[in-house]
Amino acid sequence: MIKVVFFDLDDTIVDTTRLAEMARRNAIENMVRHGLPVDFDTAYQELLELISEYGSNFSRHFDYLLRRLEVPYDPKLVAAGVISYHNTKFAYLRTVKGVRRVLLDLQRAGYRLGIITDGDPIKQWEKILRLELDAYFDKVFISDHLGVKKPHPKIFKKALRKMGVEPEEAVMVGDRLYSDIYGAKQVGMITVWFKYGKYADRELEYLEYADFTIKSLEEVPEIVRGLNLEGKERADKEVHAD
Amino acid sequence: MIKVVFFDLDDTIVDTTRLAEMARRNAIENMVRHGLPVDFDTAYQELLELISEYGSNFSRHFDYLLRRLEVPYDPKLVAAGVISYHNTKFAYLRTVKGVRRVLLDLQRAGYRLGIITDGDPIKQWEKILRLELDAYFDKVFISDHLGVKKPHPKIFKKALRKMGVEPEEAVMVGDRLYSDIYGAKQVGMITVWFKYGKYADRELEYLEYADFTIKSLEEVPEIVRGLNLEGKERADKEVHAD
Repeated sequence: MIKVVFFDLDDTIVDTTRLAEMARRNAIENMVRHGLPVDFDTAYQELLELISEYGSNFSRHFDYLLRRLEVPYDPKLVAAGVISYHNTKFAYLRTVKGVRRVLLDLQRAGYRLGIITDGDPIKQWEKILRLELDAYFDKVFISDHLGVKKPHPKIFKKALRKMGVEPEEAVMVGDRLYSDIYGAKQVGMITVWFKYGKYADRELEYLEYADFTIKSLEEVPEIVRGLNLEGKERADKEVHAD
Repeated sequence: MIKVVFFDLDDTIVDTTRLAEMARRNAIENMVRHGLPVDFDTAYQELLELISEYGSNFSRHFDYLLRRLEVPYDPKLVAAGVISYHNTKFAYLRTVKGVRRVLLDLQRAGYRLGIITDGDPIKQWEKILRLELDAYFDKVFISDHLGVKKPHPKIFKKALRKMGVEPEEAVMVGDRLYSDIYGAKQVGMITVWFKYGKYADRELEYLEYADFTIKSLEEVPEIVRGLNLEGKERADKEVHAD
């Protein structure tokens, strides 16, 4: 019997990839408008390379971009990038389509909800609070706060323990086959792979760990209901067999 | 003959003190709303103490606030503070009353304008660009970019050199008697003390370096016109005396 549904945060609850792309494009556009002596495409490609080398949480992207483009350091250009990046992030922060309806539906049906995510705890909580998502969730588990990253079993086990459920009573929904699906399956949870965003065609070697694959979150409530109906039927049969 | 008017940025062009106070109050309010187990006044006083010890540009104020209040670390509370702080800063960033009219007036009268400010160059440019003030100014000089702080003469001398004027051809307007007024007077500029914000009653031991004291920026164009008129009369007299 399913009692708890866990969700990953980025590209499952929050539309992160699309947001980041828009924010980066707007940043480069504003730098060009304020005098960056390089065309948009060259600068944008360089920024993407930089991000793939240094990671998306690197705080000095725009400084480094100037160095890589061999443009003399100019705080005005960095500020132009930072402003547009932040403005876009604040203005366009959105949940993935249909998320709130799905969460309400699950909550009304009596399931408890949790988030299991990687990332900087303050930045992840910023997204949750800005979108006023905190009221939907009983608990939020953020890997950096525990000193591990998904798919490490520790974070999944902790989430199960804190919610007071067995692995087979919990569903994990996430967009990453490796960190979310393989991770949750390792500890025995039911797994739902949300084929969405930039990981929709990646890490397919872990596809075998997905119990379900969905393209819309609106399929989640039905899957959970199905699992519980199945469980009930099996229990009924066992009673009759006695 | 006055050719250039320099302005300080914080609490002269941009209404920084008022903004920072609102941002801090809103941050504490949001932390309390999200479960900080301390009353508003206690937390706000502790934040002010922390800022006076660590400086206003310290990036971990809200982390440290929890430690000082002996509240267990909770990234949700830190995020609540950060969100309200940033939201307020973005929403309420304002120029000091009358600034734009004064700048336009001076520009139309043929004076060139500059900014001479302390602080983090990217943060200072963020304020300038967010407020779209860059078009008013010929040049912006930011001390951290030069490795010195006002009142060090180096930044004032550099500003004069880059604008191509002698000290007596330049006016410096600022709210700080020590860094702006004493600093500019050291190199021989005409000084206008803007008695405004939290420094309106401080550093009075440097009052002697102020050629003029004003309570509204709208007095600046008149002062500059007066100086040039005086200069012209003196020059006329000298011509007649020949």
